[in-house]
Amino acid sequence: MAVKVAVNGYGTIGKRVADAISLQKDMEVVGVTKTKPDFDAKMAIKKGYRLYAAIPDRVKVFESAGLEVEGTIEDLLKEVDIVVDCSPNKIGAENKKLYEKLGVKAIFQGGEKKDVAEVSFNAIANYEEAVGKQFVRVVSCNTTGLTRLIYTIKKNFPIKKVRATMIRRVVDPKEDKKGLVNGIQPNPIKLPSHHGPDVQSILPDVNIITAAFKVPTTIMHVHSVAIEMEKDISEEDIKSAFAEEPRIMLFNSEDGFTSTAKIIEFARDLRLRYDLYENAVWEDSIGVVDGEVYVTQAINQESIVIPENIDAIRAMLELMDKEESIKETNRTLKIGVLD
Amino acid sequence: MAVKVAVNGYGTIGKRVADAISLQKDMEVVGVTKTKPDFDAKMAIKKGYRLYAAIPDRVKVFESAGLEVEGTIEDLLKEVDIVVDCSPNKIGAENKKLYEKLGVKAIFQGGEKKDVAEVSFNAIANYEEAVGKQFVRVVSCNTTGLTRLIYTIKKNFPIKKVRATMIRRVVDPKEDKKGLVNGIQPNPIKLPSHHGPDVQSILPDVNIITAAFKVPTTIMHVHSVAIEMEKDISEEDIKSAFAEEPRIMLFNSEDGFTSTAKIIEFARDLRLRYDLYENAVWEDSIGVVDGEVYVTQAINQESIVIPENIDAIRAMLELMDKEESIKETNRTLKIGVLD
Repeated sequence: MAVKVAVNGYGTIGKRVADAISLQKDMEVVGVTKTKPDFDAKMAIKKGYRLYAAIPDRVKVFESAGLEVEGTIEDLLKEVDIVVDCSPNKIGAENKKLYEKLGVKAIFQGGEKKDVAEVSFNAIANYEEAVGKQFVRVVSCNTTGLTRLIYTIKKNFPIKKVRATMIRRVVDPKEDKKGLVNGIQPNPIKLPSHHGPDVQSILPDVNIITAAFKVPTTIMHVHSVAIEMEKDISEEDIKSAFAEEPRIMLFNSEDGFTSTAKIIEFARDLRLRYDLYENAVWEDSIGVVDGEVYVTQAINQESIVIPENIDAIRAMLELMDKEESIKETNRTLKIGVLD
Repeated sequence: MAVKVAVNGYGTIGKRVADAISLQKDMEVVGVTKTKPDFDAKMAIKKGYRLYAAIPDRVKVFESAGLEVEGTIEDLLKEVDIVVDCSPNKIGAENKKLYEKLGVKAIFQGGEKKDVAEVSFNAIANYEEAVGKQFVRVVSCNTTGLTRLIYTIKKNFPIKKVRATMIRRVVDPKEDKKGLVNGIQPNPIKLPSHHGPDVQSILPDVNIITAAFKVPTTIMHVHSVAIEMEKDISEEDIKSAFAEEPRIMLFNSEDGFTSTAKIIEFARDLRLRYDLYENAVWEDSIGVVDGEVYVTQAINQESIVIPENIDAIRAMLELMDKEESIKETNRTLKIGVLD
């Protein structure tokens, strides 16, 4: 029998999580929440999701907009085994009180602080740590991308120190209220950035230092990563390690992948919403100089954490073991598959 | 008596070099060249520069546009002691044959290959090497910015290894034919980038690895730099070293300098064309972790090499020694001065 899941916040992450859950045999979406009756709310109903008001006293706002809601978030939570909290940054921590009151397991996203949950999660790196837990945090898009990359190397070859510069998309594609149009914004200005410690919340033994900048683009983040290795390594060693991990996809400039714009053009032909669940690693960026590995990857901020949320549900509800869950998530989302 | 200088190519760099020469007592602009009679050519005449055709058979094109030219580049070169070649990338190397034929000293810009000249030049790092030379190359904006930063630390404290990621403005502000609008472009994709070897053309003993990316902005480049030091060092050591170098200007986020957009807004109040000859270093980006220095700087690509061109003229024609020339260039261009 399928476990029952609520998606609290049907926005950028929430709608993707709901669709991904719908593809799984062992889980089902009982309902999704919205704070207002906008086009996303209408699309949720059109797709057959039962809609709930994320804020109880907003029920009448939905009704006066002609949208029928099934009840409030509290009503929804009473029907489920687990909630995936996809509300905006910091709201998840506020929602936690309700989850605790009702004794519902919850997954938080990377916009929340580490201490909101018992475990910070990345499927390939620490699935086992989330098994049976009540509160788990799927780390942010950038941390997910870095963790996958580092773990894939680390599990094959010992690493000494990681230095990464993140060039971040300033806002998501749908944004029209704010956004840097012409400039580069160190974010944070004081170095190093918080991303390093965030990776360490999953891989505590990794020595990592990060810097981050916002730039005027909406489609993907880019990471410039340098990894000092403990032992000699070849470009082929790294390429082989990446090629074996389905959640890392290799792109080559010889195929015309000269920028994130080209990677997204490819993804638009591949999947709805041009979701790219995989780290997009430029194969020809991989270089080894003086025992140090250099590599460039791009991360689609809207979709990279979706498979992690699915695997987190399975771990927390003990539905499958690590290998089985990742394999099933990859199969259903067609991760690493190009047909 | 002032030495006679030609500016071959009155474009982005050329017009700034011409104006900077005009501020010096020991040199004068004899004439400037253009390939076509556009608004830049008209502005040159309006400013009182004698105009020459950069391509001999274009004289009639200027005349039919109603612009009087004094002759061709060859006529101009016969009147001068030195030419500053500010033509587009790779054209400088072609022009070199003419300079050699006429026995004129020449300064090339960073778009030319290293071997176009006897010396690659940065005033504070290797002024003496250009003394008396016939052909000198002022390195590119990014290399100038990196070299100044590294040299300023290196002359005070021994360094072990430099890792830098450059986030580059995709085109100059005037550009309307091309330019990445939404995306991030690894440039080059194959790591490491050429900027490291370019810094080594001036500082051969520096171990440096670089990566570079183009992003949708026009106003400044940003460098994320990590420098492994040979010995323990404090943030204050680094800040003091930068504070003592007039060609490095410190900016603080507490004053509202949150991005390159804000630095340029400041420069617009300060100077014509918002030229910023100084490295713009974020003071509060400076951090030291495990003996490694982290720092972020922004570089105005249009103007940072201008003082270097002035100092190169003095070195090649043996007008002043290093200290005297840099001091005079700084004074006349008001480098490091905010009034």
